[in-house]
Amino acid sequence: MDYQIIKRRIESLRSLMRKSGISAAIIPHVDPHQSEYMSSHWHVREFFSGFNGSAGTLVVTLEGAALWTDSRYFLQAATQLENTSIELMKDGLPSTPSITSYIISVLHEGDMVGLDGMLFTKNSLDALDREFSVASISVNPDFRPADALWADRPPLPSDAVYILPEQYAGEMAGSKLQRLRDAVGGCGAEAVYITELDSIAWLLNMRGSDVDFNPVFTSTLYIGPKSGVLFIDDVKVSDEVRSYLAGYKVELMPYDSAAGFLAESSLPVLANPATLPAALARTPGIDWIYAPSPVPAMKAEKNDVELRNLRHAMVIEGASMVNAISDITDRLGRGETVTELDVVDTLSRCRARHASYRGDSFGTIAGYGAHGAIVHYEPTPETNATLRPEGLLLVDTGGQYLHGTTDITRTIALGHPTDDERHDFTLVLKGHIALAAAVFPEGTRGAQLDVLARQFLWQEGKTYLHGTGHGVGFFLNVHEGPQSIRLQENPVALRPGMVTSDEPGLYLSDRYGIRCENLVLTVGAGDTEHGRFLKFEVLSLFPFDRTLLDLSILTDAEIMWLNDYHRKVWSELADYLQGRPLQWLEQACAPISR
Amino acid sequence: MDYQIIKRRIESLRSLMRKSGISAAIIPHVDPHQSEYMSSHWHVREFFSGFNGSAGTLVVTLEGAALWTDSRYFLQAATQLENTSIELMKDGLPSTPSITSYIISVLHEGDMVGLDGMLFTKNSLDALDREFSVASISVNPDFRPADALWADRPPLPSDAVYILPEQYAGEMAGSKLQRLRDAVGGCGAEAVYITELDSIAWLLNMRGSDVDFNPVFTSTLYIGPKSGVLFIDDVKVSDEVRSYLAGYKVELMPYDSAAGFLAESSLPVLANPATLPAALARTPGIDWIYAPSPVPAMKAEKNDVELRNLRHAMVIEGASMVNAISDITDRLGRGETVTELDVVDTLSRCRARHASYRGDSFGTIAGYGAHGAIVHYEPTPETNATLRPEGLLLVDTGGQYLHGTTDITRTIALGHPTDDERHDFTLVLKGHIALAAAVFPEGTRGAQLDVLARQFLWQEGKTYLHGTGHGVGFFLNVHEGPQSIRLQENPVALRPGMVTSDEPGLYLSDRYGIRCENLVLTVGAGDTEHGRFLKFEVLSLFPFDRTLLDLSILTDAEIMWLNDYHRKVWSELADYLQGRPLQWLEQACAPISR
Repeated sequence: MDYQIIKRRIESLRSLMRKSGISAAIIPHVDPHQSEYMSSHWHVREFFSGFNGSAGTLVVTLEGAALWTDSRYFLQAATQLENTSIELMKDGLPSTPSITSYIISVLHEGDMVGLDGMLFTKNSLDALDREFSVASISVNPDFRPADALWADRPPLPSDAVYILPEQYAGEMAGSKLQRLRDAVGGCGAEAVYITELDSIAWLLNMRGSDVDFNPVFTSTLYIGPKSGVLFIDDVKVSDEVRSYLAGYKVELMPYDSAAGFLAESSLPVLANPATLPAALARTPGIDWIYAPSPVPAMKAEKNDVELRNLRHAMVIEGASMVNAISDITDRLGRGETVTELDVVDTLSRCRARHASYRGDSFGTIAGYGAHGAIVHYEPTPETNATLRPEGLLLVDTGGQYLHGTTDITRTIALGHPTDDERHDFTLVLKGHIALAAAVFPEGTRGAQLDVLARQFLWQEGKTYLHGTGHGVGFFLNVHEGPQSIRLQENPVALRPGMVTSDEPGLYLSDRYGIRCENLVLTVGAGDTEHGRFLKFEVLSLFPFDRTLLDLSILTDAEIMWLNDYHRKVWSELADYLQGRPLQWLEQACAPISR
Repeated sequence: MDYQIIKRRIESLRSLMRKSGISAAIIPHVDPHQSEYMSSHWHVREFFSGFNGSAGTLVVTLEGAALWTDSRYFLQAATQLENTSIELMKDGLPSTPSITSYIISVLHEGDMVGLDGMLFTKNSLDALDREFSVASISVNPDFRPADALWADRPPLPSDAVYILPEQYAGEMAGSKLQRLRDAVGGCGAEAVYITELDSIAWLLNMRGSDVDFNPVFTSTLYIGPKSGVLFIDDVKVSDEVRSYLAGYKVELMPYDSAAGFLAESSLPVLANPATLPAALARTPGIDWIYAPSPVPAMKAEKNDVELRNLRHAMVIEGASMVNAISDITDRLGRGETVTELDVVDTLSRCRARHASYRGDSFGTIAGYGAHGAIVHYEPTPETNATLRPEGLLLVDTGGQYLHGTTDITRTIALGHPTDDERHDFTLVLKGHIALAAAVFPEGTRGAQLDVLARQFLWQEGKTYLHGTGHGVGFFLNVHEGPQSIRLQENPVALRPGMVTSDEPGLYLSDRYGIRCENLVLTVGAGDTEHGRFLKFEVLSLFPFDRTLLDLSILTDAEIMWLNDYHRKVWSELADYLQGRPLQWLEQACAPISR
């Protein structure tokens, strides 16, 4: 992007601000659904700043401009903001002011901040209001500069939505809606309004392709006592889908008509204040009841059909991984040139051989050597490293299949690993195994188990700063709540049927990165006089690199766990492989002994 | 207590209630300081009900009466309430109503509940108010039936207070008060009012003997910008103490004069809403600033002098334990009759040989066989069991010394332990060791580490329902905050200098109880590229029973930990022992090998 263009856009924005009496505009990178991935229609911050990272907020005042982003994007933002006069604000450094304190320091009493109330949640705008009101600064939540200034703004996606048959979903939408209505009644509401796209897709057993990686579709959903309304653009809905929804008494209305509809209803409507757009929260005439949405907890507990399908998806994924990784190591062995981007492509290509494949579940992280130590690294043509027969390759990848969503990380030695590499890999793997093998009473929260994955690293003064586990949707978002396994407290208990990642890691700047990730399913472990106990069943199927093991720090129980796991991987995948990949897997799964 | 007397007292109470327009009286077992141990002056619930357990609340309505207590006291309460017409309400059973829902179900709109606002905290009375107001029931917080009806009520304790010299305390009161004033300013207040007795004792470097086990004294403390007031009854204070306090510009006023004094001050006063008596919170004219007290966090981080003293207390305690336990096992070996109460007496007697001893830090739990499975069992003449040369003896005991407070639990086999006993003991000990040996980053909370102590039990569907660790004061309360190690989230991080117990257990009803408890000190473990790490140093000194080990489930690292610990116990205690106890310790600390 030419910096001159950005400067002109900022100046147009300032003209509009002056006309509207706005002294500072806050332009976040988000959509009205608080989605992780969003269509280009919502790339407003990129339009005004030129910065295209996945996290960051632009603030423009009448004299200045600044962009807050986190350490993943410090380099990229510095490059993209060059000469634009937009100052880079490095989030997380002690010297960096918060957005509100920056604005308060620049504005004066009586000034007004402008923002788009559809892009801030009720909770976040309430918090901003409180902070600014201390400085006698007001907030105008109806400032939408993109409407006036972004001439060639991409329209909202018009991709068609489709029905996920019951053979995949395992529960009819009617049954889910009934359970939802029961939960809504329990909150003292008579209706519910949902804006989270994965919740809508799950409830209605529908999927779409509006954004990368998440098979969701742009819409919001109102469910009343007997009927409902899906707010969605007409062009996305076929007659088949229309009549399918009519069967559940769900009618269709335009995507942007929810506010008007809700204001005319007199029923108390449940909404999640952590996701409801503030603009809707402040629409007069709606009797909102604020409470966490009941849907994430319902969606997180997979049903038996979903689990049967997901186990099949794990076989497809495992076989694809074996085909891809054995191919890559073979090409390296033959002295061919293989880059990080070749790894990404090979993985997608191997997945695409399966009819169930619907795309990747996130952008594959293929980090070679020092790139592996950059936690959210994704290779680009500019950074693309060529693999050599040495060092570690970290591959974090996953697929979207009709049979479910996968997410797996393996760390692979491309040559003879060093003692440090083997030692650190084994520490990470010991933590991975300790968590995977845990047994725990019903009611246990992820934060209680997190230390199991970290304990061996901690003993040596090592750690990783990301979470150990996130929930995973069923042919839906690869990151979903409500459970998590991490340092931070989360009051949600791990429940049978939940699918969660187990992914400890270690990152040594400029050296290497290690992560071991499988998806695990919470299952019952039996009842005793002390209560009901739960454990994990490992779902992902791909061997851990045996050349990276330091057997001297593995216990007999850990070696047994590995051998059991590799035996399972072999027996589940062998039928789906042949030739060289089959041979590769046999070697990779051979029993380990001291 | 004769049940006729109780019935008469309840009838007098009802007369008073009628006169005062009260339809239900709530009478808790607590003092205005929310103390764990309190003087008999505050045993109001016992006076009206006859029940003398350490937990339980009496509710009397015009027609009925009920007493809520927890499972520890179900049997005792049933006996003591017999024929009194007071119904026993078993807390924790699903069928047991809460106190508020019971009262709401009996009273009518417009009725009034009476209680003593000095015995409810601001937070607890606010919560009651909210619950009752839904049913249009009001609360009168000035109902103090003991004043009118308890003719021979014991007076408040008049025991003299004394100064803890700096050689024990390690920091002058003036320095502590300055730190407190700095913290108070940080909360936006100009003064602070403290009602927690251990906080007052710690701040002023004073101790008392008003109650069993906790060396505190009945008082409250106001600290203003330049001076302070200790609200305490004159009779408790010598001229020496008076002039000591005058040196810190702390003057004396009567114990019951705080409300009047505070109402006349115009400064904003910091108070902890979780402990401040509601009656004071509602006194007109006081500008309260509510925030957690800064004192518990200051008090929890022991200074170097306290720690040097505490290490000495651990030697005294360990030697006393060796003298006591070797004596008990020898007497059993000689076929003498030894009871649980003999164990309690022997322990106190062995401690009392040391000049530093100031009493026990809590009532010793000596539970033999099935009694060990009753978590809060304390032997009484009625329950006192005679030890036999078989089964397990659980001893949880501690002392108050000028040099510090101790708390230790050992489980001892009196004969040849069964395989189950050895297996279960070893599971508990493995958890104890895993926690004691943990290394963790600065900022880690106890709830994150708790699983380390439980993991081996959980693997077999076993657990314990109490916390794993509580803070311990320095020659102060054996239970103190703010840190804890338990299932429940507590946002307080473990900080260097904190002393915490490590006490996993297992309780099999009608069979046996096991608990392994040492006190551990949080210390630095070094800085790495990943941050600052902490670990524990074990303070308590007494061997674990080697006859209870199942070596087949201990790792080499665990055996090494035990041998290291026993070597330390031996080297620290041997100089303080002689004769048979020395011989006993040498055997108990001999190296363990497979």
